[in-house]
Amino acid sequence: MPAVADDGMFPMSELPRVNLRERGIELTASQIFNPGEISLVDGICRVNGCTGSFVSDEGLIITNHHCAFDAIQKASTRERDLLNDGFIAQTREQEIPAPDYQVRITEDYRDISAEVLAAVTDNMTFLERTKAIDKRRKELEIQAERDHPGLRAEVAEMFAGRSYVLFLYTWLKDVRLVFAPPASVGNFGGEVDNWEWPRHTGDFAFLRAWTAPDGSSAPYSPQNIPYRPKRFIQVSPKGVDEGDAVFLLGYPGRTARHRTASFLQYEQNARLPLTVQLNQWQIAEMEKAGSADRAVAIRHASRSKSLANVEKRSRGQLQGLKRANIVELRLQQEAALQHYIDSDPQRQQKYGQVLKNVAAVYHEMTLAAPLEIHLVQLRQACRAAAFGFFVVDAVSERAKPDLEREPLFMDRNFVQSSQEIRVAMQDWHPPTDQIMLTGMLQRLSTLPAAHQLPGLQELLKNPERIPELAASLIQNTRLGDQAFVDECLQKTPAELAQVNDPLLQVLRTLYPEYLKLRELDKTREGQLNQLYGALIEIKQEFLSSNFVPDANATLRFTSGHVRAYSPADAVIRTPVSTLRGVIEKTTGIEPFNTPDAVLKKYAAGDFGRFLHPRLGQVPVAILYDTDTTGGNSGSPVFNATGQLVGVNFDRCFEATINDFAWNTDYSRSIGVDIRYVLWITGTVYEARHLLTEMGVDP
Amino acid sequence: MPAVADDGMFPMSELPRVNLRERGIELTASQIFNPGEISLVDGICRVNGCTGSFVSDEGLIITNHHCAFDAIQKASTRERDLLNDGFIAQTREQEIPAPDYQVRITEDYRDISAEVLAAVTDNMTFLERTKAIDKRRKELEIQAERDHPGLRAEVAEMFAGRSYVLFLYTWLKDVRLVFAPPASVGNFGGEVDNWEWPRHTGDFAFLRAWTAPDGSSAPYSPQNIPYRPKRFIQVSPKGVDEGDAVFLLGYPGRTARHRTASFLQYEQNARLPLTVQLNQWQIAEMEKAGSADRAVAIRHASRSKSLANVEKRSRGQLQGLKRANIVELRLQQEAALQHYIDSDPQRQQKYGQVLKNVAAVYHEMTLAAPLEIHLVQLRQACRAAAFGFFVVDAVSERAKPDLEREPLFMDRNFVQSSQEIRVAMQDWHPPTDQIMLTGMLQRLSTLPAAHQLPGLQELLKNPERIPELAASLIQNTRLGDQAFVDECLQKTPAELAQVNDPLLQVLRTLYPEYLKLRELDKTREGQLNQLYGALIEIKQEFLSSNFVPDANATLRFTSGHVRAYSPADAVIRTPVSTLRGVIEKTTGIEPFNTPDAVLKKYAAGDFGRFLHPRLGQVPVAILYDTDTTGGNSGSPVFNATGQLVGVNFDRCFEATINDFAWNTDYSRSIGVDIRYVLWITGTVYEARHLLTEMGVDP
Repeated sequence: MPAVADDGMFPMSELPRVNLRERGIELTASQIFNPGEISLVDGICRVNGCTGSFVSDEGLIITNHHCAFDAIQKASTRERDLLNDGFIAQTREQEIPAPDYQVRITEDYRDISAEVLAAVTDNMTFLERTKAIDKRRKELEIQAERDHPGLRAEVAEMFAGRSYVLFLYTWLKDVRLVFAPPASVGNFGGEVDNWEWPRHTGDFAFLRAWTAPDGSSAPYSPQNIPYRPKRFIQVSPKGVDEGDAVFLLGYPGRTARHRTASFLQYEQNARLPLTVQLNQWQIAEMEKAGSADRAVAIRHASRSKSLANVEKRSRGQLQGLKRANIVELRLQQEAALQHYIDSDPQRQQKYGQVLKNVAAVYHEMTLAAPLEIHLVQLRQACRAAAFGFFVVDAVSERAKPDLEREPLFMDRNFVQSSQEIRVAMQDWHPPTDQIMLTGMLQRLSTLPAAHQLPGLQELLKNPERIPELAASLIQNTRLGDQAFVDECLQKTPAELAQVNDPLLQVLRTLYPEYLKLRELDKTREGQLNQLYGALIEIKQEFLSSNFVPDANATLRFTSGHVRAYSPADAVIRTPVSTLRGVIEKTTGIEPFNTPDAVLKKYAAGDFGRFLHPRLGQVPVAILYDTDTTGGNSGSPVFNATGQLVGVNFDRCFEATINDFAWNTDYSRSIGVDIRYVLWITGTVYEARHLLTEMGVDP
Repeated sequence: MPAVADDGMFPMSELPRVNLRERGIELTASQIFNPGEISLVDGICRVNGCTGSFVSDEGLIITNHHCAFDAIQKASTRERDLLNDGFIAQTREQEIPAPDYQVRITEDYRDISAEVLAAVTDNMTFLERTKAIDKRRKELEIQAERDHPGLRAEVAEMFAGRSYVLFLYTWLKDVRLVFAPPASVGNFGGEVDNWEWPRHTGDFAFLRAWTAPDGSSAPYSPQNIPYRPKRFIQVSPKGVDEGDAVFLLGYPGRTARHRTASFLQYEQNARLPLTVQLNQWQIAEMEKAGSADRAVAIRHASRSKSLANVEKRSRGQLQGLKRANIVELRLQQEAALQHYIDSDPQRQQKYGQVLKNVAAVYHEMTLAAPLEIHLVQLRQACRAAAFGFFVVDAVSERAKPDLEREPLFMDRNFVQSSQEIRVAMQDWHPPTDQIMLTGMLQRLSTLPAAHQLPGLQELLKNPERIPELAASLIQNTRLGDQAFVDECLQKTPAELAQVNDPLLQVLRTLYPEYLKLRELDKTREGQLNQLYGALIEIKQEFLSSNFVPDANATLRFTSGHVRAYSPADAVIRTPVSTLRGVIEKTTGIEPFNTPDAVLKKYAAGDFGRFLHPRLGQVPVAILYDTDTTGGNSGSPVFNATGQLVGVNFDRCFEATINDFAWNTDYSRSIGVDIRYVLWITGTVYEARHLLTEMGVDP
């Protein structure tokens, strides 16, 4: 490891301990984050599962094309194909609402570990432990929202069983699509190039956040006004070059650096292979259905892209786990820790069984994985089942007192979650759903354990009749009908039991199995929570050092340098790709079909001010060794002085295992170069008003 | 084009005009070649179709594993599998004769263009023209061998229809196998890595040339003594590094840089695609047959490897022709030349039709290609047909006066050519031959033109009975029997007609078709000979410059530098691969199965003196931009002072089109680094006596 490793996804609380100067960054910690004062973080937002940056004082957001993809897809029809053609709002009025999008801005945070853990007593069962922690978190969130009217409160677990932080967010609910390049730019290379470097994708889009006329958060209304961020991010058309320091702010989703080798084995042997298999099947079915009809392809696009992304990442992780010997390395570290524990009788007494007990939980999960993962997939792969399950779950949960409900169904969340289901229903395509339901039931029917669940026995008793059954369920259900679903959501459990819908009835029969699974998960969570709490405690003692907690979708800082890497002996991949590479890759066949508008500007040599001085080409994407994961999509790539020089969108294939272990040799993230953003937006598609709005000379 | 391009395969006659100093070479032209005196060229030899270097004063030759492959294969059996296990002769007595190998050393050359072209008169037909030139060449060769007893004379066409050079060679016929690494080193990466960089193949082997006790050339005899070259090449264990100048001497086979765009179109549209198709089929059949039985795999190994090599090269050429727009570029050059020709009535009169007439010949060849190529393949794919055709042809030709025969059957060549057939017969495997004969006849039966050849009509009349017919022919022929073939070769045509062998009879029936094809080829050759003569004349006038003639298997010099290249935007392939890359690629499954002996030495860190100082690893292969083609296999890679630092063995994939056009961006050749040669030979396989013989401290 070099003296200053470029790894680490630092929470804001750790920022004062990071030597920014040594990392080549010219800002101070408080210029980056300073609650109560205006700092860089005020220009950063979370956009659904992604990150975005405000790039004007009127709420203009830059993020990835793939983060805006769902909004673009939902606004597309066969006749007005925004995915294919791209979209430019020439005026504010033309901006298209994205009803399932929300934007969050981190305002403040507070450590509440003591308050959360006070809810736990020694004589609790694991299930009681999880429920007690969950309830206390909800209480604290509700209290915080009372104390800070207009803000959203969320408690995040930092170190499992050890530390909890309450975050306060500004939460905006009116988000609109402003500009998207055609998918042949924004998704150039498609799944072939996804998770690969060199990359030639213009993976960016512009959204805008809107508020009520008084500046408060409000759902879409024609009376709304653009959001005025406390500060916006300055775009630098000069970009960066190889060797330059860069840093990112963003909302990385999940990492597992503090998990045990037994967890990695569960991933490697159970979860990842099954994910690859199930996703490949679903993607293939959706592609088949979409190839005959563009309207169907549009409906599937968002879901299909997301499954493909996870599928390839999972393959990369499987390959990386094997190649980089990550399990073995972690086992060695754990053996050293165990040796330390066993060398003192008191330590041995307190921590001696921790690793063994964690392994026992994952071992049980590995054995149960085929059935459990198929059960979860049954109600995800089949969309009508997802809608129906939401209905059954909502009606059951909402009959309980607010604090005892699953978070999705609490009053403070239900408007949002039911809205998301409604938007998802627009893409329902019964023929595909019939294939998915058939396939999932057939898969379940070959798992012996599935036949031991009373809720499933009836469904699976005649495997040869499954196709017929699935056809009948899908053709006769009304669960794709928004009015029907809305009506059901108003019912009591007793009333819902009277509704005569065949698929809904099946889901009601299965519901107890899912509840058992939910309790089982909470029991495991309670056990792991306790064990990981102890594990982190003894690890910190053993290593005499503090760690950065695993990513958990809260705001993080990471820094690094624009940097080449060597994926293999005698191969170097340099860290700036160019427009020439787009042209080289262009075959005219998807996913390598470059729009004529781009080809014409290239042929004419019309590159505006956006040439890379050293390479003499428009730079397209940059590679850097910051520490990122999913959720960092759309993160601003800042230069040393905090100007926007790129938009993060991916990692190289070897870095899919960042989630398990970061490595200076292969951990590289990928961003679209700001010069490509500006060239495509301003020069090629002539949306010069956006450059002007960002304060860039077009 | 840079000021000093590293292209050009210079004949020795051009060497004094090459600015060696500017190319970074510290030798003078006469230190490289100086007939009558001792020069570097005395240490270089041609080994069958490859090149080799004498690396000791006792005739030790280093060349490629793939050049020695046929000898290693022929000496292998299931029980003594030298291909798999490698071979080390611990004593001179253990060296294994390779009866179909010969070694040539260039002694002198003389321009004889005037004497050759004097045989041609204006009123000759094209066929007469070819025959006259061929006859005059033979006469001059025989005369030269009379004038220089013990030497071999060969006339080479330099510029078609323009210039001819007579070369004198020392010709050694007793060649023995001394050392070969296992194929898992010598052919590491197999067809997956073939024609690719980065490469991790130890593609080298050692042979030895032997002579009669008096030093004269003689076939194998236990009384023979090692050949004493006039000079041998000094091995430098220091190797070279990126940026260093290197040069090669060797016998490049064929290039087509002076051919027309119409020739390239013939290659692209007719010959290359058919070659790919037919080779893929044959390789697949041989693999199928070999996978069940290692003894069969060994018999097929040499032929299968050679077909695979051509197949992948042809694919690379097809891809390169399209990607690099080579046809279009050449058409543009020809348009400029045509414009120049047409701008003067006298020139127009003399040269106006040349390009058009060349194109007409290739157009006719393109139309005829499916039938002609299948006819040629019929007697190559089916080995018994090859043996039988040789018999029919030999008996017919040898009935003519010596000077009128095809060269293969002239007295001065017949001992050699009949010996080669005999050695080839050892690998005959009837079940594979039956598949090949069936397949070729079935292919021919779907070509309408084939049914118009009287010799074929009878064979193809019942397509559904072809499998039965082929089975009967192969099962009942004695053409795989060496004694039978030897006996047949002694017969007169009339006697051969009486021999009752079903396949031989079929070949006799087909023979007139092949003779017609041979005459047709000579007619085309005569026409192209005249046209290309005129074309080179007017091109030299137009461009006011001299050219280097296309490669023609005569001795050439080429120089360049150890140099990275970029196959695509943001990708650089650096020019030294290392042992670490071998380990990275090793999967334990062929073709990436590294011998335990290598893995052990790697694990033990036992690298002797052979570490690359900058990379801290044993270097395996090097990449440089010299101008090479097939036949340069085994060529010495010299450093600036003429010491051996590598053995050339391949080109990168993009450089498969070197044969058509050289380009500074992608034309790269690949050699095994001398340090890997010495480490594998001396450190891993402990053949220290060979290092001592080469004057290298082991």
